[in-house]
Amino acid sequence: MATIQDVARLADVSISSVSNVLNGRTERMRPDTFVRIQQAIDKLGYRPNQMARHLKTGHLPILGLLVPSMSNPSFGQMAVAIEAVAQSRHNYRVLVCNTYRDKHLEAKMLDDLIGLGIRAVIVISSLNDERHIEAAIDKGLAVVSYDLGIDPSKPTKHDHVLPDNRLAGRLAANHLIEHGHRHLAFVKPKGATISRREKVEGFLAAAKESATECSAQIIEIDGGSRFGDNELGQLGFEAAQKIVALSPRPTGVVAVNDMTAIGVMAGLRHCGLSIPEDVSVVGMDNVAVSEYVWPPLTTVATPVREVAETMVEQAIARVNASDMPPREFSFPPRLVERQSVSEPGKPFQSNATPQKS
Amino acid sequence: MATIQDVARLADVSISSVSNVLNGRTERMRPDTFVRIQQAIDKLGYRPNQMARHLKTGHLPILGLLVPSMSNPSFGQMAVAIEAVAQSRHNYRVLVCNTYRDKHLEAKMLDDLIGLGIRAVIVISSLNDERHIEAAIDKGLAVVSYDLGIDPSKPTKHDHVLPDNRLAGRLAANHLIEHGHRHLAFVKPKGATISRREKVEGFLAAAKESATECSAQIIEIDGGSRFGDNELGQLGFEAAQKIVALSPRPTGVVAVNDMTAIGVMAGLRHCGLSIPEDVSVVGMDNVAVSEYVWPPLTTVATPVREVAETMVEQAIARVNASDMPPREFSFPPRLVERQSVSEPGKPFQSNATPQKS
Repeated sequence: MATIQDVARLADVSISSVSNVLNGRTERMRPDTFVRIQQAIDKLGYRPNQMARHLKTGHLPILGLLVPSMSNPSFGQMAVAIEAVAQSRHNYRVLVCNTYRDKHLEAKMLDDLIGLGIRAVIVISSLNDERHIEAAIDKGLAVVSYDLGIDPSKPTKHDHVLPDNRLAGRLAANHLIEHGHRHLAFVKPKGATISRREKVEGFLAAAKESATECSAQIIEIDGGSRFGDNELGQLGFEAAQKIVALSPRPTGVVAVNDMTAIGVMAGLRHCGLSIPEDVSVVGMDNVAVSEYVWPPLTTVATPVREVAETMVEQAIARVNASDMPPREFSFPPRLVERQSVSEPGKPFQSNATPQKS
Repeated sequence: MATIQDVARLADVSISSVSNVLNGRTERMRPDTFVRIQQAIDKLGYRPNQMARHLKTGHLPILGLLVPSMSNPSFGQMAVAIEAVAQSRHNYRVLVCNTYRDKHLEAKMLDDLIGLGIRAVIVISSLNDERHIEAAIDKGLAVVSYDLGIDPSKPTKHDHVLPDNRLAGRLAANHLIEHGHRHLAFVKPKGATISRREKVEGFLAAAKESATECSAQIIEIDGGSRFGDNELGQLGFEAAQKIVALSPRPTGVVAVNDMTAIGVMAGLRHCGLSIPEDVSVVGMDNVAVSEYVWPPLTTVATPVREVAETMVEQAIARVNASDMPPREFSFPPRLVERQSVSEPGKPFQSNATPQKS
């Protein structure tokens, strides 16, 4: 690939003369020099390097995206939506980093992105402690974080975009309660991230406010480092063993995300139970596959497009306006009814067509 | 964020003097100038930009990755494996571009990556025509393509890494034949990409070589632009309607990938059929969720780690050795038996524990 040095050598001029041509600063240049440089550029097929140009202006057109793992389809769907907005509206590319929810890895990647000249980053993390993010902001990075609300007790420097996770927990629990369930359980990995805590709070509040008395239990699986985002199915599978052992056995289960819910259904079947006759299951996210598993999974859909648009716009706007006051943007999720919920002890009631989301 | 210009201004020196300090070229610098520049760097918290440095050396530590869509979990899993190798062995980051299998979008993104100063790209495409890739190579890009073999009738300039797709088709068909199936079908989207064609060839060859006579049909769904990677389940769902209408009805079905296979199973159930009693189903990829769907999906696993390692190593090696002769690397897939295959008309025979892959 021809470099600016090659062009300068062939035209027998300095690199800064070539740079002047590339940047339109030719008013004081001798015409024969200008022509010689143009000919050298054409002959070598030299393409001025956008990156070098953008370094000069401070606007590198790459948006960093930290995600726990792209092997989780819910993050895959979010990444596609983010790239679509970044690309079509701002001609930005997206650089994806998998962080496996590891704080040290997140901090290192933020530092690396700054070192690469990247100015705007979306962080999908769920870690409670955001000090490493604040440190990156102090170094000049524009950050938008996903799925974490602003903690009113702590100062914050960046925007937070999230689905209303309390409402998500509430929608899932109420859907079960409306179908007559009185013994509910919520399945999650051990560890209280903010988004998980809020889903649980919404779930418990709905059970508490129910007109008829409801029991509501939290089933936690302590996977340690065993459960990455590729193992959420296994987490749900193991949670099902715990659910089956409870007395009275819950008849309605909410899982913290769809992949876990799919694992819960597999684990319940493994124990000889039917879904939804014996246990109704509700997921969260509405990943594409949730419509095709058996039974088709009733779930609380994340407003992916709205979330992606807001995150991209805020991150890029903040590059040029780092003093914008931090804001929180919360979007309501919605329930998508399919066939994994029925009245306790009864089969699914409706036509057999899977409902399109 | 402080720039090299800010440092030069504060130290009252030229930008090239700052650059000389950053690059260790200080032997001819006056000591007081050197100290002033160092102090300005410290005072402003200036971090020399790795990207600018790498531009100079021609080694930008970013690997481009073109994929059809990150919303397809099989590409998500591949992207995670690629990033793990690129990061741990070479300290490279991965920039992901979704191309939706669109040739013009692929060509544009390759040009954009070159413009950004990226030197090495992995292309997961499945498009038959690679002229846009060859054009990018002529502009200096090091490219490794996935899932396409080298066509011996055409010259090629880059490496090709792939699972042995013929063997994958053969393994799937033979597994069904060994279970007594004599009426087989293969489900795929319309359009003959090289990898799909090879899977079909292996499938048909196995049926032809079977000791007992076998019928083998290709079921194509012409989704036009309806079927992105997020709609593979719907593609399989529609293919199931076609399968059910055939006479004699196939008892063993192979789908081109797992997400389609999961849709086929949903579609067969929608028509009142049981899996595997009425129809056995085999997928391809071994995505994480295939273990937790019902029934757990028997599939042909892609050798993800071997493929990812080879692609990263070849792409990065080729940055410094663009004249390496192009090579093809083919890795054997393996069958992962679960519960979606039985003898025709019989339920799955084994213990009920899903087999771990």
